[in-house]
Amino acid sequence: MDSHRFAKRVEQLAPSSIRKMMGIARRLAQEGKTVYELNMGQPDIACISGFQEALTAKVREGHICYSPFIGETYLRETFARYLNHHFDQRKVKHLVVEKENVLVTVGASHALTSTFLALFDPGDEILCVEPFFSPYSGFMAVAGGVLKAIPTFAEQGFVLPDDDQIEKSITPKTRGILFNSPSNPSGKILSEDELTRLARLALKHNLYIIGDEVYREMILGDQESTSLLQVQLEAGLMEKFKNSFIIIDSASKSFSLCGARIGFVVGRAPIIDNIAKVVAHTVASVSDVVQYGVARAYEQILSDAEYVRNLRHTYRERLDVAMIAIKEYLPHVVAPRPDGAFYLMIQFPDLEDVNEYAMFLLERFNLGGETVAVTPAASFYLTPGRGRNEVRLALVYEPEKIRRSIFIMGEAYKAFKVYRGLEKKASLR
Amino acid sequence: MDSHRFAKRVEQLAPSSIRKMMGIARRLAQEGKTVYELNMGQPDIACISGFQEALTAKVREGHICYSPFIGETYLRETFARYLNHHFDQRKVKHLVVEKENVLVTVGASHALTSTFLALFDPGDEILCVEPFFSPYSGFMAVAGGVLKAIPTFAEQGFVLPDDDQIEKSITPKTRGILFNSPSNPSGKILSEDELTRLARLALKHNLYIIGDEVYREMILGDQESTSLLQVQLEAGLMEKFKNSFIIIDSASKSFSLCGARIGFVVGRAPIIDNIAKVVAHTVASVSDVVQYGVARAYEQILSDAEYVRNLRHTYRERLDVAMIAIKEYLPHVVAPRPDGAFYLMIQFPDLEDVNEYAMFLLERFNLGGETVAVTPAASFYLTPGRGRNEVRLALVYEPEKIRRSIFIMGEAYKAFKVYRGLEKKASLR
Repeated sequence: MDSHRFAKRVEQLAPSSIRKMMGIARRLAQEGKTVYELNMGQPDIACISGFQEALTAKVREGHICYSPFIGETYLRETFARYLNHHFDQRKVKHLVVEKENVLVTVGASHALTSTFLALFDPGDEILCVEPFFSPYSGFMAVAGGVLKAIPTFAEQGFVLPDDDQIEKSITPKTRGILFNSPSNPSGKILSEDELTRLARLALKHNLYIIGDEVYREMILGDQESTSLLQVQLEAGLMEKFKNSFIIIDSASKSFSLCGARIGFVVGRAPIIDNIAKVVAHTVASVSDVVQYGVARAYEQILSDAEYVRNLRHTYRERLDVAMIAIKEYLPHVVAPRPDGAFYLMIQFPDLEDVNEYAMFLLERFNLGGETVAVTPAASFYLTPGRGRNEVRLALVYEPEKIRRSIFIMGEAYKAFKVYRGLEKKASLR
Repeated sequence: MDSHRFAKRVEQLAPSSIRKMMGIARRLAQEGKTVYELNMGQPDIACISGFQEALTAKVREGHICYSPFIGETYLRETFARYLNHHFDQRKVKHLVVEKENVLVTVGASHALTSTFLALFDPGDEILCVEPFFSPYSGFMAVAGGVLKAIPTFAEQGFVLPDDDQIEKSITPKTRGILFNSPSNPSGKILSEDELTRLARLALKHNLYIIGDEVYREMILGDQESTSLLQVQLEAGLMEKFKNSFIIIDSASKSFSLCGARIGFVVGRAPIIDNIAKVVAHTVASVSDVVQYGVARAYEQILSDAEYVRNLRHTYRERLDVAMIAIKEYLPHVVAPRPDGAFYLMIQFPDLEDVNEYAMFLLERFNLGGETVAVTPAASFYLTPGRGRNEVRLALVYEPEKIRRSIFIMGEAYKAFKVYRGLEKKASLR
């Protein structure tokens, strides 16, 4: 035998559909095609200015050093201040976060994987609100944990199922509940009531509750996001809740800093210290100079409320344009208006497997040399069959390009119907 | 029960002795003590200039984006060019590296953990040349693998034991051999003969062979480092060797870029692709702007041979000063001159547990407000009892400070003897 086997866990790891489309899109772009990459949550907006200034200044000093593996103190302090300020300015009751409650990671991905590696043994089960950010299953597979779905549905506004419905999925192996709110991909914001219900369920069954809150600031309508830090329970339960919750956050989306790779875990100090041990043994530490840059970004929005207001305005405008364009160019689809994050889920009721359409659109179709990359949504679901006629769009272009992209999708849809019809005829021969 | 259990793997993860000393040293520094931090391989030298220029220019452009999870193409290409050039300029026969053979990671730590997670299942055994970089055991514990020592000894110049001695440790569970050359902590450079022996052993027993070559450029004497890329075998074995070897590298040490967090895995494309899946599911991707900076660093040394020459000169000068100072101020210790990397191992034959001395030196002792942090060496060994009377020094200060540090260590040693004597008397009362 000339080659060796790999670990069993890698069999469960595959590049996500998001990244697969990115690969093809970049190749086509190199070949001269214009591809609107609506497949990835990579904002087109320039990054926050404070990051550039602080990082540049720090790099000029010339000493690029190991960080404590829990993260640089000034960033942990600044991020804690930002979180507390986020709730205080809304006059919302919340648990107060201090630097001891904050761990710095290489983006939210590393925050999630490190958390899973620290909490879960192989075979442990974790309930996850579905649809969910597809890489969750791979992050969990690295730790050997098993995701199980809590299904929610567009037609019902993605509301959580009743408690007893959720409890049917709980087994002696269940160790946690995981959700993303505002949700990538659905845009759903869990209400205070839903969040409290999940927290009570977690406490009743002695589970961790992990909230991925990276889209906290990305609000597209009137409903504000609700954080695990806001959950109010009777005094007897509160202590246990504090030992059970974990929040994931990131600088990537709000500040257009996807390439900075800075994320956070928030929780009680003993939990943070244990997850920090995993960080120490996966990446040793996070880039010190980048942490300086990101700390300044948080400082900047602490003193400049306009930043987040403008951000929301930008994405709302894009969403408005997208909703109008969908009605006009894709009248046959189902596309509920999201409340948060910056994605749109579009169902094509008459397509059996949306992959074919998505690949046709990307590789075979163009309008004046232009086309669109979208993400087929099946990987956002665990429940077999779900998402097969659905795609996700990320609102990461200016309104005119979003309108143009959806127009191209509409034209491609018509062409795809003809193409499929011809193919079927051919196969009957 | 108010709190939850953690995953079993975290029980095996503890902050390394290196980092533990760092924590105490930083606290004392804040309290006003001057601490020479010889405990950590964090160069004091300013980072390479090309990094600063390229990173700053890229950040100014304002778009900070996700990278492909295998790494940015230009960095992978530049790093491959650097590796080939390293051997070509020495007229050394070697396997040619192309970008397909290169994966970018968050430093060598992440390169190692990702490799271990991709190759090894829980319970798999890996032989490791001892003494070794202590975090190896934690990196392996994240994957559930088990390290077993191939002991080498200072008195024998750290030569590898005979084949049959090594083979005694091989069981049906053994899946790899791991070494670090030039070695942190011993400074040992594996000879071409030793490397070839390890390669043959790996092939004979169907094992991976993983070479951590991060100190490739840090040569302190006449012996150049030897890479797995230089191993020459008969044609029949070469194909299998290509499917068996993996090289770990990093930009941290040669360029004084510890805080950049850029490392590399080098291997055959199918191996690289599988490890890349783990990278995708641990950190998603590595910072794009930092990759730009590091690519420029490699470009710079491709055209400027002086850089590495100066680097070697700097560390040789430090080592010379250290060896003279040890003879003068610590005449009772055993400290072999290392061939590579930038560490010194010092044995104190008359100390039972060097931890007590190291803590005394750091916390209780000072000379004009100054003291020294060193790393007790027990964690660099798996074999029980080894390293207990040994410390590691990193040559990360200018010569005068290194001389001063060793002088302080000598004075502290005398004071420690008196202190221990008094303590023993007290305990007899």
